[in-house]
Amino acid sequence: MKTQAYAATAADKPLGPYILERRAPRFNDVAIEILYCGVCHSDLHTARNDWGWTNYPIVVGHEMVGKVIAVGSGVSRHKVGDHVAVGTMVDSCQHCDQCHKGEEQLCREGNTQTFAGADRITGEPTMGGYAKHIVVREEFVLKVPAGLDLAKAGPLLCAGATTYSPLRTWNVGPGSRVGVIGMGGLGHMAIKLAVAMGARVTVLSRSPAKEADATSLGADAFLVTSDTAAMAQATSSFDLIIDTVPTQHDLNPYIPLLDVDATLCVVGQIGPLDELNSLPLLLGRRRVAGSAIAGVAETQEMLDFCARKNVLPEVEMIRMDQINEAYERLERSDVRYRFVIDMASLGQAEPVAA
Amino acid sequence: MKTQAYAATAADKPLGPYILERRAPRFNDVAIEILYCGVCHSDLHTARNDWGWTNYPIVVGHEMVGKVIAVGSGVSRHKVGDHVAVGTMVDSCQHCDQCHKGEEQLCREGNTQTFAGADRITGEPTMGGYAKHIVVREEFVLKVPAGLDLAKAGPLLCAGATTYSPLRTWNVGPGSRVGVIGMGGLGHMAIKLAVAMGARVTVLSRSPAKEADATSLGADAFLVTSDTAAMAQATSSFDLIIDTVPTQHDLNPYIPLLDVDATLCVVGQIGPLDELNSLPLLLGRRRVAGSAIAGVAETQEMLDFCARKNVLPEVEMIRMDQINEAYERLERSDVRYRFVIDMASLGQAEPVAA
Repeated sequence: MKTQAYAATAADKPLGPYILERRAPRFNDVAIEILYCGVCHSDLHTARNDWGWTNYPIVVGHEMVGKVIAVGSGVSRHKVGDHVAVGTMVDSCQHCDQCHKGEEQLCREGNTQTFAGADRITGEPTMGGYAKHIVVREEFVLKVPAGLDLAKAGPLLCAGATTYSPLRTWNVGPGSRVGVIGMGGLGHMAIKLAVAMGARVTVLSRSPAKEADATSLGADAFLVTSDTAAMAQATSSFDLIIDTVPTQHDLNPYIPLLDVDATLCVVGQIGPLDELNSLPLLLGRRRVAGSAIAGVAETQEMLDFCARKNVLPEVEMIRMDQINEAYERLERSDVRYRFVIDMASLGQAEPVAA
Repeated sequence: MKTQAYAATAADKPLGPYILERRAPRFNDVAIEILYCGVCHSDLHTARNDWGWTNYPIVVGHEMVGKVIAVGSGVSRHKVGDHVAVGTMVDSCQHCDQCHKGEEQLCREGNTQTFAGADRITGEPTMGGYAKHIVVREEFVLKVPAGLDLAKAGPLLCAGATTYSPLRTWNVGPGSRVGVIGMGGLGHMAIKLAVAMGARVTVLSRSPAKEADATSLGADAFLVTSDTAAMAQATSSFDLIIDTVPTQHDLNPYIPLLDVDATLCVVGQIGPLDELNSLPLLLGRRRVAGSAIAGVAETQEMLDFCARKNVLPEVEMIRMDQINEAYERLERSDVRYRFVIDMASLGQAEPVAA
């Protein structure tokens, strides 16, 4: 089927209208009308080929919320009319130990990314959610629980899953002492999710200017990392620090804040981190780890948790034709805290290519 | 009491004979005649003030094996004639949560190091094991189990404890896939201990030249890190990698070798490590950690384990007056794999200062 979309056609050109061919649903596929799609920083990185692996044209977007409009003959999990969601993965090998454990994000053969991936059957490039429709195999389609605001839920699929998973991996619960570095799309979800789990949440920031925002998001405390006395006072006071900073940076100031056996988990930066001093790692048996998105089951658990606890991202709704302006603002961190595209706006755009 | 010792008197001078004043045993102290003392790289670093915190004169050495010659009135754990050992710590606060857990090495107030520390009562500098005698509070005196070769056991107190502890922390047992980087004093103990625990042990080395040595120490496999095909083949194949390299180096080649949720534990280098790329951490939820020595209970457990499993370091026995030559060889990694000083040789040395 042909569907309206918005595509990047070159690294240095704005995104524009595009007619996208979606496959006819296979026996295990779900066809979805996309209602909303969140805007993730990796959309921008991919559209601009910042990571060097983009082929054009490309349709990005991996925080979709929509409605089932058709299902393949073998589909049992979803039915027409259901509210569903699609995140950063659309397939995996389904037979390795990680897939069997429900950790498809760690599939031994590599999961199939929602955009800039390759369909496991045809090899064709996968195209993401800046579109009216998508077709996805049923195992990778999430259920949007009743009560979760469809217009706001999109960012849970990446920003939510990416921060929920390490909070669960490191057993955050009532009384856990959680630090959050960075207060963008991921960071603001880390705060809300950890608070909803009952943790005592501290935002770590270079500048005291963000304290009011941190408090409004539910954080219990705010630690100014340039305040050496406050930092010394906070030595060994965290069970887990979630680091959402998306650029190369220095972890060394944060490591001594970890308690014995505690972990700093990087979820933002994909690439080099500054020289790391081993001394505070050795002296506290402290750990540095990374985590990326979440498995399907854990993502569903997160959606259900958010519906139960009424956790939603803070979003700013935009029209599809505002995406280029939104990217410019995203680069300046000028968004509180995630853009969401209202796909109803795409109907007004004129297709330019078939 | 006065005792014969060997001291460093300046960073650039050889060690030489020295008369050391040991305290009269307090009610909870054990006075020990030192029979053997292992030579650790940190002895050399401290004697030469490589870390900048050395005050002279200093007597180093923290891998002691000896015999109890007197006990304080309140001592219940040890008696005159017992074979005992002293490692890298001689005291801790004894009232914090870590001390209560038996993890005195992670004492919240800092443990008291065997040398270059400060006595918790008098504040006087602690002096280590290159001496005929030492006086240590009973809680920090280990029992040498029957059957453990006294002449070889010394290096277990630091090199053994430092590698045993992370193997236990990360639950190494039968079938665990353990990698060891570096094959010096620490590395050779990591191999022997992991093998004795039933793990499948692989030595990782830049050069194929060490394969025969690795095999003779019990390693099951040898991975040449310059062999890109072998390294790619080994992706995700380790549960734990113990990194004993004592200098700044690059961890990046090793991280992809870790399986999902697996850990590379640094026990050698105390200081900067090269820039770390977060990508393989994120993609495998992999971890980098540090670990230093072990608590008293775990060190005793290690000694008992070594006696039961007949695990002993490979040592080269030296006289006390060979220590300066031994340091030169240690710097060139020219020792298989740990020097041990026979303290009987100290009797022949002439004291030079009182």
